Amino acid sequence: MPANNNNPSFVLRKKQDMVFEDRPVPEISDPHFVKVAIKKTGICGSDIHYARDGELGPFVVNSPMVLGHESSGVIAEVGAAVSKVKVGDRVAVEPGYPSRYSTETMRGKYNLCPDMKFAATPPYDGTLCRYFLVPEDFVTVLPEHVSFEEGALAEPLAVAVHANKLAQTTFGSQVYVFGAGPVGLLIVATAKAYGATDILVIDLFEDKLELAKQMGATATYNSKDDKNVPLQAQVNKLHETFFVPDTVLEASGAEPCMRVGVAATGNAGTYVQVGMGKNEIDKFPIGAIGTTEAVIKGSFRYNYGDYRDAVKLLASGKVDAKLLVTHRFTFKQAKEAYELSGSGKGIKVMIDGPTDED
Amino acid sequence: MPANNNNPSFVLRKKQDMVFEDRPVPEISDPHFVKVAIKKTGICGSDIHYARDGELGPFVVNSPMVLGHESSGVIAEVGAAVSKVKVGDRVAVEPGYPSRYSTETMRGKYNLCPDMKFAATPPYDGTLCRYFLVPEDFVTVLPEHVSFEEGALAEPLAVAVHANKLAQTTFGSQVYVFGAGPVGLLIVATAKAYGATDILVIDLFEDKLELAKQMGATATYNSKDDKNVPLQAQVNKLHETFFVPDTVLEASGAEPCMRVGVAATGNAGTYVQVGMGKNEIDKFPIGAIGTTEAVIKGSFRYNYGDYRDAVKLLASGKVDAKLLVTHRFTFKQAKEAYELSGSGKGIKVMIDGPTDED
Amino acid sequence: MPANNNNPSFVLRKKQDMVFEDRPVPEISDPHFVKVAIKKTGICGSDIHYARDGELGPFVVNSPMVLGHESSGVIAEVGAAVSKVKVGDRVAVEPGYPSRYSTETMRGKYNLCPDMKFAATPPYDGTLCRYFLVPEDFVTVLPEHVSFEEGALAEPLAVAVHANKLAQTTFGSQVYVFGAGPVGLLIVATAKAYGATDILVIDLFEDKLELAKQMGATATYNSKDDKNVPLQAQVNKLHETFFVPDTVLEASGAEPCMRVGVAATGNAGTYVQVGMGKNEIDKFPIGAIGTTEAVIKGSFRYNYGDYRDAVKLLASGKVDAKLLVTHRFTFKQAKEAYELSGSGKGIKVMIDGPTDED
Amino acid sequence: MPANNNNPSFVLRKKQDMVFEDRPVPEISDPHFVKVAIKKTGICGSDIHYARDGELGPFVVNSPMVLGHESSGVIAEVGAAVSKVKVGDRVAVEPGYPSRYSTETMRGKYNLCPDMKFAATPPYDGTLCRYFLVPEDFVTVLPEHVSFEEGALAEPLAVAVHANKLAQTTFGSQVYVFGAGPVGLLIVATAKAYGATDILVIDLFEDKLELAKQMGATATYNSKDDKNVPLQAQVNKLHETFFVPDTVLEASGAEPCMRVGVAATGNAGTYVQVGMGKNEIDKFPIGAIGTTEAVIKGSFRYNYGDYRDAVKLLASGKVDAKLLVTHRFTFKQAKEAYELSGSGKGIKVMIDGPTDED
Repeated sequence: MPANNNNPSFVLRKKQDMVFEDRPVPEISDPHFVKVAIKKTGICGSDIHYARDGELGPFVVNSPMVLGHESSGVIAEVGAAVSKVKVGDRVAVEPGYPSRYSTETMRGKYNLCPDMKFAATPPYDGTLCRYFLVPEDFVTVLPEHVSFEEGALAEPLAVAVHANKLAQTTFGSQVYVFGAGPVGLLIVATAKAYGATDILVIDLFEDKLELAKQMGATATYNSKDDKNVPLQAQVNKLHETFFVPDTVLEASGAEPCMRVGVAATGNAGTYVQVGMGKNEIDKFPIGAIGTTEAVIKGSFRYNYGDYRDAVKLLASGKVDAKLLVTHRFTFKQAKEAYELSGSGKGIKVMIDGPTDED
Repeated sequence: MPANNNNPSFVLRKKQDMVFEDRPVPEISDPHFVKVAIKKTGICGSDIHYARDGELGPFVVNSPMVLGHESSGVIAEVGAAVSKVKVGDRVAVEPGYPSRYSTETMRGKYNLCPDMKFAATPPYDGTLCRYFLVPEDFVTVLPEHVSFEEGALAEPLAVAVHANKLAQTTFGSQVYVFGAGPVGLLIVATAKAYGATDILVIDLFEDKLELAKQMGATATYNSKDDKNVPLQAQVNKLHETFFVPDTVLEASGAEPCMRVGVAATGNAGTYVQVGMGKNEIDKFPIGAIGTTEAVIKGSFRYNYGDYRDAVKLLASGKVDAKLLVTHRFTFKQAKEAYELSGSGKGIKVMIDGPTDED
Repeated sequence: MPANNNNPSFVLRKKQDMVFEDRPVPEISDPHFVKVAIKKTGICGSDIHYARDGELGPFVVNSPMVLGHESSGVIAEVGAAVSKVKVGDRVAVEPGYPSRYSTETMRGKYNLCPDMKFAATPPYDGTLCRYFLVPEDFVTVLPEHVSFEEGALAEPLAVAVHANKLAQTTFGSQVYVFGAGPVGLLIVATAKAYGATDILVIDLFEDKLELAKQMGATATYNSKDDKNVPLQAQVNKLHETFFVPDTVLEASGAEPCMRVGVAATGNAGTYVQVGMGKNEIDKFPIGAIGTTEAVIKGSFRYNYGDYRDAVKLLASGKVDAKLLVTHRFTFKQAKEAYELSGSGKGIKVMIDGPTDED
Repeated sequence: MPANNNNPSFVLRKKQDMVFEDRPVPEISDPHFVKVAIKKTGICGSDIHYARDGELGPFVVNSPMVLGHESSGVIAEVGAAVSKVKVGDRVAVEPGYPSRYSTETMRGKYNLCPDMKFAATPPYDGTLCRYFLVPEDFVTVLPEHVSFEEGALAEPLAVAVHANKLAQTTFGSQVYVFGAGPVGLLIVATAKAYGATDILVIDLFEDKLELAKQMGATATYNSKDDKNVPLQAQVNKLHETFFVPDTVLEASGAEPCMRVGVAATGNAGTYVQVGMGKNEIDKFPIGAIGTTEAVIKGSFRYNYGDYRDAVKLLASGKVDAKLLVTHRFTFKQAKEAYELSGSGKGIKVMIDGPTDED
């Protein structure tokens, strides 16, 4: 193949139709961009949605799109204006970058920028390829002792960091975390690093709750038998068995968890919605916040500084993210990786970047 | 009647059973309390609920209870430790006071104190009587040019102040207010005093919307034909016709308003739930805040400083609260006042305190 | 002269050496920039410093520099990517723009960006010329009823807005303002628009204090006789004669004012340093904040949204900035304008942009 | 001695005149108070000032005063209204309590209450006695594994907690701490527990800097040779050798430290003044915050929740406060304890409560 096509990519052509393609190596046109040689990419729930359904919420795959957005790699080339990083730097890659001219970006909330270009969110190509372009300030250098795998996990960890910042988790915080999937588990470890002293994790599966304990949960609760218990009774049980939380982080996106979470949040506490589920939910206990003055916040991806702090968490050893990696595949096995991840097995599935032979 | 029974009171014995009673004059036992001779009392929606249904939310009238909690009067006697006010002071009366030993009070959130004693919330007697006891720091002196009627209106105005503080309304704020009842109208005037430059009021009735304009609304919208319009279409129409709000104050307690309000709140904006309606609502658009990171807050009564600021608003002339008073009754006509108010006529109904003859 | 030199400019060659030059018309190279035809420019204290001393703080005029940075004009040309404004728009011009890649900018604090390019701060040319280039989001459209003169005054007004935002001035705030120069006066009017109910202005000159009343001061104090009064006595006198402020805005840069201001700030209040004076001051009463927990903030220029709010203040009529303009000059009279302003006469001196004949 | 005089107390009659007295056992008159049998009391710098000079700042010892305010003990009796604690509880004692009716207390800032009654601050007696009265919400129960000695250290630790809350220390914070005395050292350990990743401690003594490392410092700097180095050079050296801090906690009260600390605080960072020194300092670099917009805060004692969090820090093992205790004395040796502490030897000196024989 010609040198300028040396960019093997794993492409979703349409739903349930994934292929490998040789694509042109992207060229740096904006002098503030760098070219990253991808080394590791984790699979996220959103990737699975696109692969299976061809859509997620308002986003539809209308043309072929490279998959993947949780990645790390090595800087292979830098634009003329780049000053923060250099060729050879090992980096975590922030998969989306905003317009520098939007209101949101200029007031310090680039995650809300309407012109965000986000990898593997249609129509933007993802990171399951050899080379990926990104602005110099959207990569974070990894210390030597942080692996590429951990670097790829900086993506969901940045989600956890952002949520904990919105929650203002601090020393002594008493926290409920709903959902012990990858993001929920990283929220637990992050909450602990921010000083939370009491962390109750609620999920339906014992093995996930076990992992939650390894990540820092001080207590766990399996809610699988609560389906028909009245809301207030569920709240009372949690309050009496454990504690009244000042902070609730909802990472399941499940309607019953949202209800219990909102109703259980203590006086003047904060509930953060991290998990994504249905757009509209029934029997939402809005009355509860009328007397507790609890605050409900939505958390969307991550903002300035969150990746930096995610890498700090990895570097400090406070978050042992690799505990989440249950399966590993080569680039050539990407399809198998997606199948396994889509089957619901495993927590986090990791895919190598292309080798020289790929 | 004996002098110590000189405390005529308007009592709800049980639902739909209101009588006048001669009650003993309350005596000051706590040296920080003052005795207020009540001059004016407004009727609030909660009074109507108790009078008609004997209950409101979790509160049930199990024994006779004096009605009324929006009051002003003159200080008739002060306890031995009182230093902030003196006999003869004209004051607005804050109808509830907390425990001084609760966590909530000590961290500056006394409105959330679980041991609040709130007038005309069972089992605590209200203010429709000659003499009412209250701690010295729960009355606010009225300047001479502020009438007793305005002083009574400091109660719903303090609700409006509290909501605007939670909303962080400031110069340039672009605000939607849902509901043009007494609290909604006072929220409008307060938002303007806090600097809001764009205030859209949404209600179903033209006469209320007219009054909203007098109180400071810069635009109004009658939503009576929107019942079957899809949520996003309603939001788009408001955004395109008016503006994208950074601040939404929901004062109707109506489910459709809550849905539109939450979904319409702009990026990183704030939605404050002031109106009380059903405890649980369906089709709550939680997904919206997942991308806007809008913050949803519950607002409960008022907290330290809110009464002070309500009286300042009255004194400055920035809020012309008496525009709300549509009907006035003597103490002896209290039953007629309740009937009229319960019929839904009028905005705010005002009742005199007992005269010497009563 | 050749068309491409049609950019008459008022240039400071070195201290006390100002000349008119024909400079090339600047060409738009960044597609996000616009070219503004300058209509009005106010003289600021910093301009006077450069003109007289050739330096200000760390900044030194080492090569010829166009003067002026408080300007308004009409958009004469737009870059290819411009979408927010169009040719013919009447605009206030924000004189400095940051790097879009700095930490400070990306976290929403572009005023602190170390790579700021600020007009008439060496080595960057100012706005006293026919055409000036600026990014599209660093101009603010003026409503028709806001004059170019007012548009030029948006610059010091944005300083006042920024300071009041840092001070969190809100309804009911009780404010001291030290210094009734242009910025101090605009701070007064802005504080009032943000809801401050009590505004004491302190200065040494009666005429300035009179103007402060016109701008919104509720009280004034002439401190010219306080030179030898002990600090605490000065504080006590102000507290007893007027009120204990929750907010202090220091706009004089004078050492005695700073001392009194810091020591007078009430419990948990905020003191904002806006005026620029000596870098180090003696007898700074740091002990005071050890018991009041008052917060001292530095205020530097303006940040995202401040210009927008300044223009809103002008448009709403809440700030009548043109009261400050005491002298007006044509472009050809720029030198006379600088001489008059440098003599200390007048409050704000305004210079027209070049005419077609200039 | 008669039973009701069974309250041996260590009394400062006037400066340099300390005696043991038999005082009456205090009786509970306020039903919300508890009587604590004191077990351990640490000596604080303020105690030494009173003992030696008879005064500290505005406070003067005009009549005999029991010394001591850093104490723990066992609840010996509870008032009729007490519900939060019970006889036999092991507790840390908060030495000052405010009026429940002051503005400051009601807005959640009781540490600023002007009517604070603070142990061993004239004219209020301290805790170096057998029995001490305090409101029930001003004691914090100690878990079994937290010793009385650690409980006494909750006092300076609460100071450290309060300062870190004001500083908003969080995960990733980069902190300078000036002064490695007891409070400075506890600030270091607390900052680490709140998530700070980089903590530079600056002091003049190597042994203290060594102890700082044990408490959590990641770097230390001995500034003893910097006396004649220009301010900016000192700042530059610290920035280049270590890092630019977002957070500075000044715990020395020394003028040169304040200057360097304020000037070294990074853009939009926070400087907290904890140490108490001279009321007025010279050459204060106010100009620095004019361009960095750093915020300077005063920190005064501790507020609601700080003692609770101090005890949590002790209970969690995150702060090993007993490392600070260098000397221990019996109650009868109190005078020797004061002499040793006054000589500057040791870090923290601890005195037992009276035994049955005392």
